[in-house]
Amino acid sequence: MDERVREHADVLVDWSARVETGDDVVLSVGPEAHDLAVAVAEKLGERGANLLATYGSGEVTRAYLRAHDDEFDGDSTHELALFEEADAYLSLGGGRNTSALADVSSETRNAYRTARTEIREARYDTRWVSTVHPTRSLAQQAGMAYAEYQEFAYDAILRDWESLAAEMARLKDLLDDGCEVRLVSGGTDLTMRIDDRTAVNSAASVAYDSHNLPSGEVFTAPSATDGEVTFDVPMTVRGEAVRGVRLEFDDGDVVDYDAERGADVIGDVLETDDGARRLGELGIGMNHGIDRYTDNILFDEKMAETVHLALGRAYDACLPDGQSGNESAVHVDLITDVGEDSRLEIDGEVVQRDGRFRWEDEFDK
Amino acid sequence: MDERVREHADVLVDWSARVETGDDVVLSVGPEAHDLAVAVAEKLGERGANLLATYGSGEVTRAYLRAHDDEFDGDSTHELALFEEADAYLSLGGGRNTSALADVSSETRNAYRTARTEIREARYDTRWVSTVHPTRSLAQQAGMAYAEYQEFAYDAILRDWESLAAEMARLKDLLDDGCEVRLVSGGTDLTMRIDDRTAVNSAASVAYDSHNLPSGEVFTAPSATDGEVTFDVPMTVRGEAVRGVRLEFDDGDVVDYDAERGADVIGDVLETDDGARRLGELGIGMNHGIDRYTDNILFDEKMAETVHLALGRAYDACLPDGQSGNESAVHVDLITDVGEDSRLEIDGEVVQRDGRFRWEDEFDK
Repeated sequence: MDERVREHADVLVDWSARVETGDDVVLSVGPEAHDLAVAVAEKLGERGANLLATYGSGEVTRAYLRAHDDEFDGDSTHELALFEEADAYLSLGGGRNTSALADVSSETRNAYRTARTEIREARYDTRWVSTVHPTRSLAQQAGMAYAEYQEFAYDAILRDWESLAAEMARLKDLLDDGCEVRLVSGGTDLTMRIDDRTAVNSAASVAYDSHNLPSGEVFTAPSATDGEVTFDVPMTVRGEAVRGVRLEFDDGDVVDYDAERGADVIGDVLETDDGARRLGELGIGMNHGIDRYTDNILFDEKMAETVHLALGRAYDACLPDGQSGNESAVHVDLITDVGEDSRLEIDGEVVQRDGRFRWEDEFDK
Repeated sequence: MDERVREHADVLVDWSARVETGDDVVLSVGPEAHDLAVAVAEKLGERGANLLATYGSGEVTRAYLRAHDDEFDGDSTHELALFEEADAYLSLGGGRNTSALADVSSETRNAYRTARTEIREARYDTRWVSTVHPTRSLAQQAGMAYAEYQEFAYDAILRDWESLAAEMARLKDLLDDGCEVRLVSGGTDLTMRIDDRTAVNSAASVAYDSHNLPSGEVFTAPSATDGEVTFDVPMTVRGEAVRGVRLEFDDGDVVDYDAERGADVIGDVLETDDGARRLGELGIGMNHGIDRYTDNILFDEKMAETVHLALGRAYDACLPDGQSGNESAVHVDLITDVGEDSRLEIDGEVVQRDGRFRWEDEFDK
């Protein structure tokens, strides 16, 4: 077995999910994530955790959903019981085709998703972590050769997380103390309020309220957004290519939008509900292991020298205890490159310029 | 998809497990059983059942078990909760290597098995069915080409189960009414008591107390076995080839044994516990779709014109309500060919001669 697969399992089990002896662990295995599942099972055996492996296959889900009449009874008590008793949930993504669910209607997906709300919430109540095993299908989506993609993915995943967490803590502290953020870049001049908000130091570990591996971003929940922003990182949203999206905000709401490509899908997103016209997230990518866009949000939004904003739902972790942030059925991330001719200010002070933070040697005051 | 895969799924879901709308179904998927899982998921969607797929990988289990210190805490509450709430359990066997667990010690396997007693019992309390997807690794074990093995497996699985159940009911009635069975064949002259025992018409459906697909046998729990028996069907027992086993019984107990090959492993089995020296099962194969031995007990013991006897544990279904039959930690089937120069008598009357039952045209009184 590739030694990197074992290292990936080590990071996932120890750093990310903090698995301990006696933990009841659910391990979801994508059809092509078998090797990583074997490595993770070995780690879980070492830890003396209890293992139940589930099969996360898009093709199985597609067959089930297309044959179903969409009257999901929401009463899948066996799966609910499983997650209510679980301590940790490790999802190993990796299939044969990232478009495996392409011909399942959005009505069916939404009905299924709604019926499974309780199961999803029980899963989110565990120490859950999502990761991916680098597969040929993900390499294809990224437009990369398989071996090249493996290098890329492990560069992103096998970081010195402790040291990155320490660096990200500096940005978190600045955001926690700040009241207003201003982002200036090509086609972008945007201000947002962040009073009373708590930033998440997303260091790929449940100990940091962070549930993705790789991670490497600091994010918060902005409000009262004003100005305009242009997203120059190419993305796929709801199965459609989206390029050069421009949004104009007035007192928190999107009041105008267009796009070089995919304006229709952005329009659809904005019309979902009231919350879809407001921002739910401001995220700042700090993972230097991610050096290019691969059309996979798990990686793209963590890329160093990028900033992303999400239309829709905010994470409660960013709000004062007991309060909820922006509510919406959607959470759609859009990304902008801040590597050149850009600056991020907190309360008028420049924190990041041209992709460099103020604590970095290359930072140019 | 091969149309036979769909037909297999139809038989499994409708005939075998009797899945109904709203049933909570656990589907265990072997790493190479993906296509069958897709077909079964489609059927479960049609039925409006709830689906949770688990990943049944020998390699994952091996990695977990070898890394574990064997102090299994028996407290895997999430998996127990899953099966306690499940209505049906469908196991789709099919891996890449039938020897995937070869280097896991029997001590570890036994400790793991013991720790999981409650989970296993909860699973047996569901409408459970074990089947296999014909894979290259099973073809290899059978010494057959892949396409040839597929033909073989589907011939065994895609039977007219209703009609076979009706034929098997005739043998069940004779056994239920009988007191003594005598089996005479080359190297075999054995008598067993079956007073008060109830035979199981194992017609590959939970409606018949039958949990294997394929099935096609009638079995009961004999006692007070006397005489000798020779098993001429080649088998693998505990990973070792076993040939020409001969057992001698006196008043229920094995008093002497030898074998052309594998006598050691038979000796080990017999020494497990007191119950291991007694028979737990007399089974009569009646599946004419199975026309050769493939070193896979799921198929071999159901082959028409064979009789099998198991050392060890008896099935409670064969005993009067509330009573338990022979108890043992083992249940080891051994098979003898009765296609030639043989007869099976119940209370002195010949029921089967040279593989033909009395109700068959070719039966020679």
